[in-house]
Amino acid sequence: MEKLKTKDSVYIRFLNPFSMSYLDQIASPTLLIDEKITRANLEKMASKAQRLGKKLVPHWKTAQSRTIGDWAKDYGIHEVTASSISLAEYLCGEGWESIHIAFPFNIREIPRLNRLAKNQNISVQVVNASTAKALAEGLTEDVSFFVELDAGYGRTGIQASDEAELEEILTHASHSQHLKFKGFYIHPGHTYYGKNTQKIHEESQAELARMKAKYSDRYPNLVTRLGDTPSCAAMEDFGDVDELGPGNFVFFDLMQVQLGSCLREDIAVCLAVPVVDIRKDRQEILIHGGGVHLAKDVLIQPDGTKNFGEVVLLTEKGWDLPSHYSFVKSISQEHGIIQASEELLNTIKVGDLLGILPIHSCMTADAMASYLNVNGQKIDHAEGAR
Amino acid sequence: MEKLKTKDSVYIRFLNPFSMSYLDQIASPTLLIDEKITRANLEKMASKAQRLGKKLVPHWKTAQSRTIGDWAKDYGIHEVTASSISLAEYLCGEGWESIHIAFPFNIREIPRLNRLAKNQNISVQVVNASTAKALAEGLTEDVSFFVELDAGYGRTGIQASDEAELEEILTHASHSQHLKFKGFYIHPGHTYYGKNTQKIHEESQAELARMKAKYSDRYPNLVTRLGDTPSCAAMEDFGDVDELGPGNFVFFDLMQVQLGSCLREDIAVCLAVPVVDIRKDRQEILIHGGGVHLAKDVLIQPDGTKNFGEVVLLTEKGWDLPSHYSFVKSISQEHGIIQASEELLNTIKVGDLLGILPIHSCMTADAMASYLNVNGQKIDHAEGAR
Repeated sequence: MEKLKTKDSVYIRFLNPFSMSYLDQIASPTLLIDEKITRANLEKMASKAQRLGKKLVPHWKTAQSRTIGDWAKDYGIHEVTASSISLAEYLCGEGWESIHIAFPFNIREIPRLNRLAKNQNISVQVVNASTAKALAEGLTEDVSFFVELDAGYGRTGIQASDEAELEEILTHASHSQHLKFKGFYIHPGHTYYGKNTQKIHEESQAELARMKAKYSDRYPNLVTRLGDTPSCAAMEDFGDVDELGPGNFVFFDLMQVQLGSCLREDIAVCLAVPVVDIRKDRQEILIHGGGVHLAKDVLIQPDGTKNFGEVVLLTEKGWDLPSHYSFVKSISQEHGIIQASEELLNTIKVGDLLGILPIHSCMTADAMASYLNVNGQKIDHAEGAR
Repeated sequence: MEKLKTKDSVYIRFLNPFSMSYLDQIASPTLLIDEKITRANLEKMASKAQRLGKKLVPHWKTAQSRTIGDWAKDYGIHEVTASSISLAEYLCGEGWESIHIAFPFNIREIPRLNRLAKNQNISVQVVNASTAKALAEGLTEDVSFFVELDAGYGRTGIQASDEAELEEILTHASHSQHLKFKGFYIHPGHTYYGKNTQKIHEESQAELARMKAKYSDRYPNLVTRLGDTPSCAAMEDFGDVDELGPGNFVFFDLMQVQLGSCLREDIAVCLAVPVVDIRKDRQEILIHGGGVHLAKDVLIQPDGTKNFGEVVLLTEKGWDLPSHYSFVKSISQEHGIIQASEELLNTIKVGDLLGILPIHSCMTADAMASYLNVNGQKIDHAEGAR
């Protein structure tokens, strides 16, 4: 092997084609994706939905990627959900049978919606009559809508008991040539607080069943959609719910591990970060990887310390879970400080790369806005709000 | 005025050129910047530095913009600091006399640094001897460096008492044709925790003075740099420190208001968000504006509630602080829920826009990655990590 004066191992490796790996491409913080794990997550959820006789319509706020959308289609997934009209625009033209925008519709975006709906089967979410009225008056293309029901934790959605509002919404739609009622949607996001997923799930399911029974005479084709990642991972009974809508399961993350939705082995993304300093006396490793990369989601550990992500060891083919525990104990805009195990401290040096499993993969992927597949391929991510 | 059937006020306004405003451009969450406030912040800090006989070298991690850099140059600011090599690359070629990368240097980026330093006067930050060694061996262009001293809160920097490490760094530099010692840098970031800015400032200043005295025989041109926004806003005595390096002051934010660095009137950016639902019974307003827009920084209010941002009222020329208090009490990926005053609830309707003053403007600007000037002009922001 040719000897070079430079100590830049990246360059040395590029000269040896036999040792090439995705690692050779990384100089700066980079979000890695393991395609095999991602596909296994997609396949498992798709199989479960099929077994239960439900349609899986994943929420693409997590992956936000056209390429990963193509992977999903390999498992019979043909409809998808976007978190914003920007993301719906990004996914348009990719062969999705329909795209649902699962956010209370913003009536200032009606002109954008009309442009989008020219070429794409689109549904939106409605939570009040004034939005339905504006849509009924402003739409020039066919758009269907879900009514979002309040899942009981007060973020969004109308109360199922608020019949007057619901009737007003349906009346506006009935007067419109373009606005079509599709059904009812519940996002029980409070399962993320970890308090009794089972009970929340049963209540949401019962509410959808009641609403379906009540309105199916008038709207025989109405569908109901339920299910975030914690409930779709854990529950087996979805009653007469028609569609499942989890998002995070595509990648999972440490929050989902804590909620019991998955194992660490199921997490499909990790942030590769360069080591810039080591403090053996304090058992700390300083990395280039902070709030602008990981976002600032945090788990509180049993001993009260904060956990902004956990260390994994990068390999030529992906990453391995270490037998010893090291985690990111603090972050600022660009910096992260790892509380490191003895074993890690004994092997690490400045300039090495480590992997960090994220607390909340949706936010990390949104912050990084691109992926590197561990086979070396770049994978797209929407620019989102930007 | 022409009457239209559509209720889309954006369209109505476009037909009336006399009422045109930046507001007409906004359909979706948009980060607004008030150029007048930004310039006043720049001018005030530049005047203070001049009065104290110090060089102001602002940290551009907050603004991350070429255009705002041009505004800064109007106040005699000709050097700037970047938080990453990506940002330094973005700012290169914009006429900066020098750009400092204020992050413990990542030796995997030496090839990028060499490319950058071909066309731009660059300095980096060094916190250990192994990094100095790699730079000394790998540089093909002139690059100077600050040694970062630990400000006492243990994030980054070497201990001033660690003479062996410091000597090793200086020895590596002395053997290099390209690596030049520039001086000492302290970032007393713990002023953000609000605990005794005065004391922290005095300690940092004393440490820099000690180090300057100790090394100025060997390095007569060495400079010292100090100063984050809380200390540069509040302090008057910077002793023999040569350069001030605050960043956040360009925009300020609610964290700085809480720390006493500024008034709400000095905050130069706010997130314009569309109102998508109103819950009068709960005094809540649902906005399209969540963690992907604001980031997730939070202040805890005296009553224990969380504050993710405060409501301001948008006007044709910018925004006004309301006499009544409304704030973002919770956020998720795309959603924000405002706890609204009676006054706000009485005037707001679905489809209106509100302004949100950010808790941490650096993170909000990084998340949004572009600005709309309240004169209607788009303003650039680097893509950062992405």
